[in-house]
Amino acid sequence: MVLSGIWKRHEDSKEPPPNLIFSHAKDIPATDVQDICFSVGWSKREPALISRALLNSLAVVSAWDGPLMVGFARATGDKVFNATVWDVVVRPSYQRKGIGLMVMRELLIELDSYDIPLVTLYADPGTDSFYKRFGFLCDPSGVRGMFREIDRKT
Amino acid sequence: MVLSGIWKRHEDSKEPPPNLIFSHAKDIPATDVQDICFSVGWSKREPALISRALLNSLAVVSAWDGPLMVGFARATGDKVFNATVWDVVVRPSYQRKGIGLMVMRELLIELDSYDIPLVTLYADPGTDSFYKRFGFLCDPSGVRGMFREIDRKT
Repeated sequence: MVLSGIWKRHEDSKEPPPNLIFSHAKDIPATDVQDICFSVGWSKREPALISRALLNSLAVVSAWDGPLMVGFARATGDKVFNATVWDVVVRPSYQRKGIGLMVMRELLIELDSYDIPLVTLYADPGTDSFYKRFGFLCDPSGVRGMFREIDRKT
Repeated sequence: MVLSGIWKRHEDSKEPPPNLIFSHAKDIPATDVQDICFSVGWSKREPALISRALLNSLAVVSAWDGPLMVGFARATGDKVFNATVWDVVVRPSYQRKGIGLMVMRELLIELDSYDIPLVTLYADPGTDSFYKRFGFLCDPSGVRGMFREIDRKT
């Protein structure tokens, strides 16, 4: 009943939970990343692969409400000239509270600390206005995002 | 005169130089990378920064005609779920000989050896047909490439 009460408070409030903690650690539990990604309908990735991808990422940010991961984002890159943002996600029951903005802000603070001049991302339809708030522009100078997808062998 | 003769042969031929060598080494001379990028009009990046970016890249491919770098491409990524291709370049006097295709093929062979399911890139205007030959698609499912550029402090 207490848990349910807390849950209700989060859903009703437009403010983020007051005790939200942000982490820049890469060695967070892969199952928590798997769970938050699955909560928004993304396919379930293997925890061992997630752990490896996090360690090979340039920056990883997670937002925690107690033991629950409620926001996540990461970036790959060369730590010098460019970085690319991936997997920006907020747990559905914690959305519309500004947590996505806070996660992105934390990620960009880390990337800017490396003095990386170009940060890129691939925005899903309808999400570009969110990223424009951080200074991202769509297809500047006619540059087009391109994708080549293949099935994993394993 | 001999050098000039070799040069002429390259410019006239639609075939790549027969002795072209491909390298997947990351510790290639930064000044050679700086030079080939400058040859196509890109801004001159500091060699020390180039070296650091190459070491932090996931894959680096260079094509050599003797001591001259004639083609280059690299990719960043997490080595698990995604990679992003950057800086695909062929020295102007060596263009239209299929060297770009060969460089991209070498890069994708290395990325595919890691079993990476998603390879992305940002295509300059007019270059998307080149990348489509490798299975890249523009903006699939309405995904848009976005960029945030800031000036380096140093």
